[in-house]
Formats: sequence, C-alpha cells, structure tokens
Amino acid sequence: MTSVRRKSYVDGVRPGVRVPFAEVDLTDGSEPVRLYDTSGPGSDPAAGLPPLRGPWIAERGDVAPVRGPGTPLAGERPTQLAYARAGVITPEMEFVAIREGVAPELVRDEIAAGRAVLPANVNHPEIEPMIIGKAFLVKVNANIGTSAVSSSIAEEVEKMSWATRWGADTVMDLSTGKRIHETREAIVRNSPVPIGTVPLYQALEKVNGDPAALSWEIFRDTVIEQAEQGVDYMTVHAGVRLAYVPLAVNRVTGIVSRGGSIMAAWCLAHHEENFLYTHFAELCAILARYDVTFSLGDGLRPGSIADANDEAQFAELRTLGELTRIAWEYDVQVMIEGPGHVPMHKIKENVDLQQELCHEAPFYTLGPLTTDIAPAYDHITSAIGAAMIGMFGTAMLCYVTPKEHLGLPDRDDVKAGVIAYKIAAHAADLAKGHPGAQAWDDALSKARFEFRWEDQFNLSLDPETARSYHDATLPAAPAKTAHFCSMCGPKFCSMKISQELRGYAERGMHEKSEEFLASGGRVYLPLTS
Amino acid sequence: MTSVRRKSYVDGVRPGVRVPFAEVDLTDGSEPVRLYDTSGPGSDPAAGLPPLRGPWIAERGDVAPVRGPGTPLAGERPTQLAYARAGVITPEMEFVAIREGVAPELVRDEIAAGRAVLPANVNHPEIEPMIIGKAFLVKVNANIGTSAVSSSIAEEVEKMSWATRWGADTVMDLSTGKRIHETREAIVRNSPVPIGTVPLYQALEKVNGDPAALSWEIFRDTVIEQAEQGVDYMTVHAGVRLAYVPLAVNRVTGIVSRGGSIMAAWCLAHHEENFLYTHFAELCAILARYDVTFSLGDGLRPGSIADANDEAQFAELRTLGELTRIAWEYDVQVMIEGPGHVPMHKIKENVDLQQELCHEAPFYTLGPLTTDIAPAYDHITSAIGAAMIGMFGTAMLCYVTPKEHLGLPDRDDVKAGVIAYKIAAHAADLAKGHPGAQAWDDALSKARFEFRWEDQFNLSLDPETARSYHDATLPAAPAKTAHFCSMCGPKFCSMKISQELRGYAERGMHEKSEEFLASGGRVYLPLTS
Repeated sequence: MTSVRRKSYVDGVRPGVRVPFAEVDLTDGSEPVRLYDTSGPGSDPAAGLPPLRGPWIAERGDVAPVRGPGTPLAGERPTQLAYARAGVITPEMEFVAIREGVAPELVRDEIAAGRAVLPANVNHPEIEPMIIGKAFLVKVNANIGTSAVSSSIAEEVEKMSWATRWGADTVMDLSTGKRIHETREAIVRNSPVPIGTVPLYQALEKVNGDPAALSWEIFRDTVIEQAEQGVDYMTVHAGVRLAYVPLAVNRVTGIVSRGGSIMAAWCLAHHEENFLYTHFAELCAILARYDVTFSLGDGLRPGSIADANDEAQFAELRTLGELTRIAWEYDVQVMIEGPGHVPMHKIKENVDLQQELCHEAPFYTLGPLTTDIAPAYDHITSAIGAAMIGMFGTAMLCYVTPKEHLGLPDRDDVKAGVIAYKIAAHAADLAKGHPGAQAWDDALSKARFEFRWEDQFNLSLDPETARSYHDATLPAAPAKTAHFCSMCGPKFCSMKISQELRGYAERGMHEKSEEFLASGGRVYLPLTS
Repeated sequence: MTSVRRKSYVDGVRPGVRVPFAEVDLTDGSEPVRLYDTSGPGSDPAAGLPPLRGPWIAERGDVAPVRGPGTPLAGERPTQLAYARAGVITPEMEFVAIREGVAPELVRDEIAAGRAVLPANVNHPEIEPMIIGKAFLVKVNANIGTSAVSSSIAEEVEKMSWATRWGADTVMDLSTGKRIHETREAIVRNSPVPIGTVPLYQALEKVNGDPAALSWEIFRDTVIEQAEQGVDYMTVHAGVRLAYVPLAVNRVTGIVSRGGSIMAAWCLAHHEENFLYTHFAELCAILARYDVTFSLGDGLRPGSIADANDEAQFAELRTLGELTRIAWEYDVQVMIEGPGHVPMHKIKENVDLQQELCHEAPFYTLGPLTTDIAPAYDHITSAIGAAMIGMFGTAMLCYVTPKEHLGLPDRDDVKAGVIAYKIAAHAADLAKGHPGAQAWDDALSKARFEFRWEDQFNLSLDPETARSYHDATLPAAPAKTAHFCSMCGPKFCSMKISQELRGYAERGMHEKSEEFLASGGRVYLPLTS
C-alpha cells in the first residue's frame, strides 16, 4: 500500500451536505487518518466558487434573492443565532458538526448560548461553514489586503487561496487605499472560508483619510455595502469611548489599533461619544438582516509588553461586554477581539476576564506577542502567546507574520504565519484534550518510530517542506525506506535500537541476552557494509 | 546622535575581570541599552582564543599546568562548587555577577546550594564564564557536531561561532563518526562559551558502534581524554537502569535518546545494571579533578506527545535525584536534563517534579515540543514549550532546529534555532520578572512608537533581518525617518495618530477640539502631498 494524501468527503443526512477532509492513506495498512481541511474546492478567479449554501438559504425563504443586493424580507432575522435559539439545526450546523466530529445538537446549543459563532452572511453562499467557539477546534485567521503603498487585487486573491491552502479558517480583508470594493468582491466570490473586514477603513477612504470627517451615516452606508457583498464578520470599534481615550495617553505605545486610533481621533475632534457606541442598536438591526457576525474590536489593546492588561484595555473590555448583550437581543452573533502584546504570566487573566465580562462570547485574539524584542520573528514571539491563550479558552487566533511591524506580508510570510498559528492552535487543542486531536500526533509519531518516511511526510502540517529537508541530507530514494536517518547515521540509530529492545524485553531478558551474545553480540547490523 | 550597536566592557574589582556587553546608542539621547553578549572576542581558528581564565586558575594553585594534560594536584577538588561552599567568590563568579547584573554573593550562594552551575573546566581557560540557574537569565544551548553522514571540522567550528554570535550560551559537540577528538579540540580552543559533550558517543566509536562491547574502562578513559581537552560539562546516562528498560517497551516511540538506547542495549545484552550507575562514584572523583559539570542525561525522555510524563521517564528522574546527592558529595556541579515532547498542560509537572526529586539542581530541557505534527517547524513547536518550561523555572533550554527529525542542521538552521530559543528564553525572563529584562522590550517599543527605525533595528534580536524586511517594502532611506510604515502607509498610521492624541488629551480636550476644528479639522497631515 502506498502513502497518499488525498481529498475525501463525508455526506450528511441532508442532501447536499458534503464535508471535505484531507485523508492520508498509510503504508502499514492501519486506518486512514482524516484531517480538517480548509482548502476549498479550488476556484477559477474569473468564475468564482459555486454557491454551496445557495439551496439551504433559499429553502429557509427568509432572504431573496441570495446573490446580488440580497434584500432580506422585512422583519426577518435570518441569523444562525436566531435559528439555534428556535431549536433549529441548519444545514450549516450539520456541516460543521461533521467537520468537527461532534453532535449537531452541541453545535446548535453552543451557538444558541452565544458561546460559539458560525459566521455565514446570507450573501456569501460560497463558503464551507465553520464554527468559532471554545468547545470546538481552535481556529486561525489570516489577514490580507492591499495598502496605499503596495499590492494588487490578483495578488490578494492569490494570498487568500494560499492562506486557506495552508489552513486559515477565516481571512480578513484589511485593504486600504484604492479599489477597496473591487478587491473585496474578488476575495469574497473566491473564498471557501468566511471573510472578515474593518468597514471603518473603507469609510475613512470615503472622507479622504480624515477621521474628523467621519459620520454615522457614512459608516452605516459602508456597512450595508459590505453586507450586501457577503462579508461574514465585521470588526467594529464601538468600545473606544470618549472617556477611555485619556487612559491610553501615557502608555509606552499609545493606541496601536488603526480602528481604535481613528475613533479616538474622531471622539477628541468632536468631543463627543463614539458614534459606533451611540448608534450600536441601529447597527445590530442592519447586521441581523444579513447574518453578519460582530467582531467587537479592541481599539485600546496594548501594543507593547509595558502596556499589557492596563486600565484602558480592561475599561474597553467591560464596554464590549455590555454591547454583546445588546447584539444578542437582535439575534446577532458576536465574538470579542483581544490583544496584542502580553507577557506569558499575564495571558490567563485576559481570557478569564473576557469570558466573565463578555458572558462567554468567543474570544478572538491577535497573538499575543510575548516579547517586543524580535521584529522579523513575531510569528514566533506570538505563536507562543497564541498557543497559551488558546489553551486557556480563546476560540480563534489571528495570525502574525514575520513582517509584523516592518512591512506588508508577501506570499511566503502568509504561509509562515499560517503554519506557526496552525501549530499554536493544534498545541492548544491537545492541551484542552479536544477529542481526537492527539490521534494526529500519534499517527505521525508511530510512522516516525517505524521509519515510514512517506507516511510521516504526508501526515505533516507541511509535507513538501518536511520532505525537502529530509532529502537535503539523504536524497537517495532508498533512504526513505532506510531504518535510520541522518541525525545518527546507519550506526546506533536510537529508534532502530529501541525497536530491537522490544524483542528482548518482550521475550524474557535473561535467555535472550545469552542467545543475543551467542549470535555475535551486535545489537545493530548496519545497513551499510 | 546616530544609532549604533557596539561592544562595550565593564571592569570588575579584580584586575583582568572585564565583561563584554553589546551596547546600543539611541538617537533620542536616552541612556544606551546594554545587552547580554555571548559572541566572544572573535577567534582565529588557527590560533584559538586567548586564555582569559589562565591567571585566575593559576592563582588558585590547585592545578598545574593549565593547558595540556593538566594533571590536577593530588586530592584537590578545584570546582566552583567547592570554592562556593568554602565561601570564596572566584573571578569566574565575579565575572558572572557583572554579566547578570546581580551581587557576587548571590552567584556564590546559588552555586553553593547546588541551585546553579558555572561550567568551567580547569583546562578550558578560553571561556567567558556564565551561569545556569533559575535565579539567573534563562540560557540557551546549541547542538552541533559532525556525523557519519556529513560535515567537516571547519564547518563545525564555524557553526559554533555562528551559534554564539546569535546568542547561544553553551554549545554541545555531538560529533560521531571519524575524527571526533580533532573536531572537539578545534571547537574547545575556539569557543568563548562552555562546551558540553556526550562521551558515550566517542566511547561507542572505539568499539565500532557495538553497544554490547562497551565497558566502564573504555568509557572512563574517554571521559578523562575529554576532561583533559577542556570539556566543561558532560551528559551521562547513568539513570537508565536495567529495571526501567521494560517500562519503555510499550511506548509509541520507545527510547529516542541515543545515549539512553545505547545503555539500554548494553543492559539487556549483559543482563546487568548500567555500568555508569554502578561506577558513578568513581566518575564523580574524575569530574571533580577537572571541574567538569554533570549534565545527568534523560535517556528515557518521551519522544512523542503520547509518551510524555510516563513511568519510564519519572522512574529515571527519581534515580537522577539520588545521583545528584552523590555528585554533590564530591563537590561536582550537577544539572539535570529533561524532555523532549510534552503537551502544554503537562509541562509544569515536569519542572515541579524535577525540582523536588533533584533537590533544586538546575533543569536543562530539550524544548519540549508541544505537538508532533509539524516536522520542519520543530523550532516553533518547541519554542512554545521552551518558553513555558522556562517560565516555570527551567534554567537552560536546549535548542531544536527546523531540521529536527529530518536531517542535520546547516548554518541557517542553527541561526533559526538559536533565535527561536532566545525569544523563548527572554519571554520566560519577562514572565519570571527577572530584574531588568523588560527594559529591553520597553526601549524597543518606545523606539517603535517614536518611529526611530534605526534604534528599533539595532535593539532587535536580529538587526539585519529586521532592517531587510523593512527595506523590502519601503527601501527609500527617508522611510527610515518617516513617521509611518508600510502597514498603514502615510495616511492614518495608528502610531502617528495616537501621538497626536497626546497633545489633545494632555492640553484639555474641549478647547483643543475647538481649536483643532478651527485649524481645519485634520488629525493627520499626510507627509506626502
């Protein structure tokens, strides 16, 4: 039997619910290993992806039409939260249950309780549904987007596909500068995963980058424009209240959130309360119509180790807790964004406080970075914090790339960031004892112990790189079946020796040791010479 | 004032005690930042390094001559532990105290209590003394060494210098195959940091790779040969007792330690107790004569998530605790090696148990890797575990490179491994609240907030890479002084905006907002146009 990594599908009870997995056939004849797969069916940028959810949304009869402007029927709240609260298991929920290997009732109940979100805009039928909540696998978000300084629409669509190929569970389009609408349209129509945005960025472009010129009306129209395109979740900085701004003034790094600094600038310019806070209920009514999920932004998150867990950060967090309750009244799904830069001993407090103040709404954190000293390696400084905060109950981790603080991520940076975060997320799943998480580790370790190199590569998070590193030292094909590796060479390979020990230990040591010495006393017969 | 990273020195009370630092001059005129420096004076491989410790060792009059065979005077135990117990502060201790920014008495007392080790063979006068203990900065070890399959002596010396340039605090020479003695001689004579070895590897070469043919006499003579060359610490797998071997038989990955599997093979072949265990006292007497520090090996460490914290691992750990007491009776310094592969929720137990069973002797761990699924990225899977285990009290972290499990590390892998581990070690220092650790983060974050790009680069763990990533997006020299970066572009840079907020918040908001609107209401005047 040969080692192969291939796509496989599991059908649900409901026709049309067909869940993709990456399946690895092993050479030892044991059960194939089934891995969570975010890569999607593969899209032709010109045509976009097929509308997988189309029939499901149409069947509910709560929106018409699905594509295009998609005006929801008056009064309807076609949200997954509304259906979950009504006791309904939607096709999206069934899809997610199969993907996560849990009961559909668990998916429905966690969404109904607000402990999980299933971001799925009624105008984004192309996505393969996924869920974000502490009872499920820890998820990873990848940020992409054009900026005033660089990159094109085609590049960003390519980055999106590249990110999902390596395991990104959602993608945020943070485009600024020109052609924001067209860039987003291309990304949404081609994405197999939910798309998130920060509408404030586009709103600011509409007023030529002048925060003081922003208004509720401009912001509202931008949100509707994006909701109609199919954006699945939106970051809204409604917690940056006028009274909190002075709390950030004496920080080492002030306000590092773009959205946070923009709203703080608006508040100070007008000496008025944040219009996102004062118009929050109206905003909820709009998001409910499209089932856009709130990602309540942490505009006052710390931007350095020195500013972690300070009063500005936690004052905003308390406000996000109030807003969560209001959104839930409108059946709008909510997750809460978190830091940032936090030393390891202060990470747990962030999760505990967020879960308490925000009534267990899912936590979605950026890293956190556990030290500020390593620009160019912040995918690592933050993977440490991300793994820990995931273990403590954070539901989704926003990746950080090696270019963080220095420049815009290119294709390689996107991959490096996603891989580092898939590692952090899986390490957290193991630590949380997520059912089935360890089976992956065990299958790979068993393949390693038994020198099934191809099985080991195909089970790896990045098969190509693992294979190429092995071949760099031992290129010969036979080496892939050899019972040793280049660390020890053909002599006294520890794995080989300890395999042989099994024989002795299992079949009584004493007589075996005599027989063994009689046979020449060599524990290991080198493959060479 | 220009931003510069340069070497500086601090003199001790005693003549000849001159401690090197990497010092960064900042453009804002604030105090230069002094960083711990392991790079050494720079050696000419042909000549080797000057014998910094020569006069100090000679002055003690307990060994003669310093170089060459270096026969210690009969009965003497010229160890740092013996001197510390006698209340003496050696020049090595004073050097370390200045390096760590602590009182010499603390250094002496931690060594005397066995809570810290100062590895410094009397025949290795070239090193700049360093200390390993939970009261001090967390240290990083880098493994190098030739193998039967690849690499040359010159390459390994180059790797050693490269590793210390990026911050390796000690280097282990794990050479196997041909010319082990010559390779080690070249490394020891050129290394500014302590060198560790696993004498068992060379002993095995002497019996043509046949573990069953090993004997106490062959091992003893190998230890003396290496001690006379100046090896500062040696890994000894004396805890792999005959009775523990069966405990590892049903593991997913058996015995993954090379030394552990070799001794297990010997025990089973002869059905006798491990000769390193039965001759341990004799070994102590030898190490005492040269002040070689024990690194008691964890031959039964887990090699996979499935095997973490099992009976085989902890049975050996209990034995290492017994052996620690015996070594201390001989005034021999001791540290204890630890795993390996451990999921995050099982990491703390490793440190707590080791500290209890081994009477607070310093813990020295390999990673641990927090998941098995990412070969080619194990510097990251393990940096997560290393940072956590460091936070819990581990004194030194043995690095893991991207090539772990796949091949031998090249120059780039060595750098990647060292950088990932310096990040883990510093994150742990921050979490432990090590005095002065956060000053580095604060200086860099302040430079970032004030757009002092060159200061930010020079304060970075890897200035070259940070600078090159920045230049990749904004190559123009002016960009280095620009008040924005490529993430946001010239418009609404959050750092810039929040700097401006200071003005408003500090000078009363209300009238400022009026004045501000009167002035045109722009929070940010783009640098361009």
